[in-house]
Amino acid sequence: MESTNQLIEKVKTILENGSYEDKMVLEQVVYGIDKKQNGSYNTYITSFMKTEIEENKNQLVMTIPITPFLDNSVDIVHGGFTATLADTAMGTFVNRKIPSDKVAVTSEIKINYTAPGVGEFLICKAEILHLGTKTSVTEAKIYNEKGTLVAAATGSFYLIPRKKG
Amino acid sequence: MESTNQLIEKVKTILENGSYEDKMVLEQVVYGIDKKQNGSYNTYITSFMKTEIEENKNQLVMTIPITPFLDNSVDIVHGGFTATLADTAMGTFVNRKIPSDKVAVTSEIKINYTAPGVGEFLICKAEILHLGTKTSVTEAKIYNEKGTLVAAATGSFYLIPRKKG
Amino acid sequence: MESTNQLIEKVKTILENGSYEDKMVLEQVVYGIDKKQNGSYNTYITSFMKTEIEENKNQLVMTIPITPFLDNSVDIVHGGFTATLADTAMGTFVNRKIPSDKVAVTSEIKINYTAPGVGEFLICKAEILHLGTKTSVTEAKIYNEKGTLVAAATGSFYLIPRKKG
Amino acid sequence: MESTNQLIEKVKTILENGSYEDKMVLEQVVYGIDKKQNGSYNTYITSFMKTEIEENKNQLVMTIPITPFLDNSVDIVHGGFTATLADTAMGTFVNRKIPSDKVAVTSEIKINYTAPGVGEFLICKAEILHLGTKTSVTEAKIYNEKGTLVAAATGSFYLIPRKKG
Repeated sequence: MESTNQLIEKVKTILENGSYEDKMVLEQVVYGIDKKQNGSYNTYITSFMKTEIEENKNQLVMTIPITPFLDNSVDIVHGGFTATLADTAMGTFVNRKIPSDKVAVTSEIKINYTAPGVGEFLICKAEILHLGTKTSVTEAKIYNEKGTLVAAATGSFYLIPRKKG
Repeated sequence: MESTNQLIEKVKTILENGSYEDKMVLEQVVYGIDKKQNGSYNTYITSFMKTEIEENKNQLVMTIPITPFLDNSVDIVHGGFTATLADTAMGTFVNRKIPSDKVAVTSEIKINYTAPGVGEFLICKAEILHLGTKTSVTEAKIYNEKGTLVAAATGSFYLIPRKKG
Repeated sequence: MESTNQLIEKVKTILENGSYEDKMVLEQVVYGIDKKQNGSYNTYITSFMKTEIEENKNQLVMTIPITPFLDNSVDIVHGGFTATLADTAMGTFVNRKIPSDKVAVTSEIKINYTAPGVGEFLICKAEILHLGTKTSVTEAKIYNEKGTLVAAATGSFYLIPRKKG
Repeated sequence: MESTNQLIEKVKTILENGSYEDKMVLEQVVYGIDKKQNGSYNTYITSFMKTEIEENKNQLVMTIPITPFLDNSVDIVHGGFTATLADTAMGTFVNRKIPSDKVAVTSEIKINYTAPGVGEFLICKAEILHLGTKTSVTEAKIYNEKGTLVAAATGSFYLIPRKKG
């Protein structure tokens, strides 16, 4: 690893010379690592994406703010983040519905993009279509804050024994 | 935005009290922002993922190191990153093959996960199956450094006029 | 082509010596050709499958009886028929929603199977998720007569100029 | 069931008054039922489609003639048949590779259509990407007789205990 001092110098340089987007992303990831560290999130990527979860009767709703961190090279949300959001929302929902000695791992996911990911928020609504003892099939719809459908996903998950740790 | 001083203090705290993984991720993202700033990468996420590209005759090969940043909650590469890698590799390859006044945007992607994303590297080999004037269909296989297939993806792209900037 | 007499002899042999399933399938296809001929259906396969269509406000519902013709080698509905049903229902719905000088052709379809196709009927409920000027994205859920979800599909369609004929 | 005589009369009417396509389809299905009856095929649909199988080292190649039976409403092969071909080829290959007390059932399939299904033949080349003890992931490419890629598919299969019969 680079020396601590070099890294802090690099941080200062970004804060002095970076673009507005660079500074926003820096702030987002630094506070993201902090939140992962204090247990608010269990992965770096969901902490960086600032996922927020709400569970309704039949849906898990996962929301993220659209920030420069998410941009692809033409300044809309990178499809990979949209897929990550859908995968995470669907997988989280399945994990909440199965016994604690099992864990759901993604078997496959397909996502159709129907509108550019622009605006303030992406709101992902995940539902479970089938929940067996060994597998689950799910779907998710992703909207922007105006209610426009941005993407639609389906996925399947294997339910495997959770490693004891 | 938080004040500059607060942010630097937060960085110092992570470097002092964070786990080894926290520090690695911090270093990775700080240098990632720097590389995005100096033009080595055109998106933050590919800079953070440290994508490297090589083009063979019929393949675009995109490689990333497996780092804690990529981990999901059970310490294997989050399927969203694998999807991001496949999407980026396929899209980059299509963009290299089309006229410069057009840009390829993902229409849909499907990915099957065949082995856990663990080890040192993910190596994504993308190929173009069909390239028309308005659409392209592609596939990608993702391997670890031992040659085990980790995931297989197919995707389609719309070829739309590039915005003048 | 075989001579007419030979073919009629073959029909008689099936009717005399065939299994109950053979006779049912023979009847189904002969009357299917007849219905295609008289214009009740515009393809042989939908006539053989005996598709029936009903359109609600936001859904096109396509129903087929489960018959031996549909069986795979383990006596459940062949996944290819389930895919054909989903594709046909989604495509028919898109074609009803677009100008008559255009036709929708399938770009891609993905289908997840969630329960064996057994029972009396398959009921496919198709919805349009996105309808643009050049493409459409759709989804379909397929149930048996008891309301069990048998399969879930998503698909995309290109909207191309209809050939004048 | 209709009476035998009525059915034979209907057959005669088709042979007398039907279009060339009607007669071809009638012949195809009648001989298809016959071949299913004598054990050449284990499903009606593959018999009607006249699937032929060849196995190379790493591929199962399944070929079908393009006939009016396969047509959709715009006179190209119905995407459902292309999906059926891909599903059958991939599933057959997996079934050949697993112990005889297990059977592979389709978990999901996705297919991208890259060129119209027209010409003389569809040639489907299936490969196994992953074969575990409980699941398999496969892919298939479908070409016409000129070597043009018509469709590309990926699928997964559950490997379940075969029912004793």
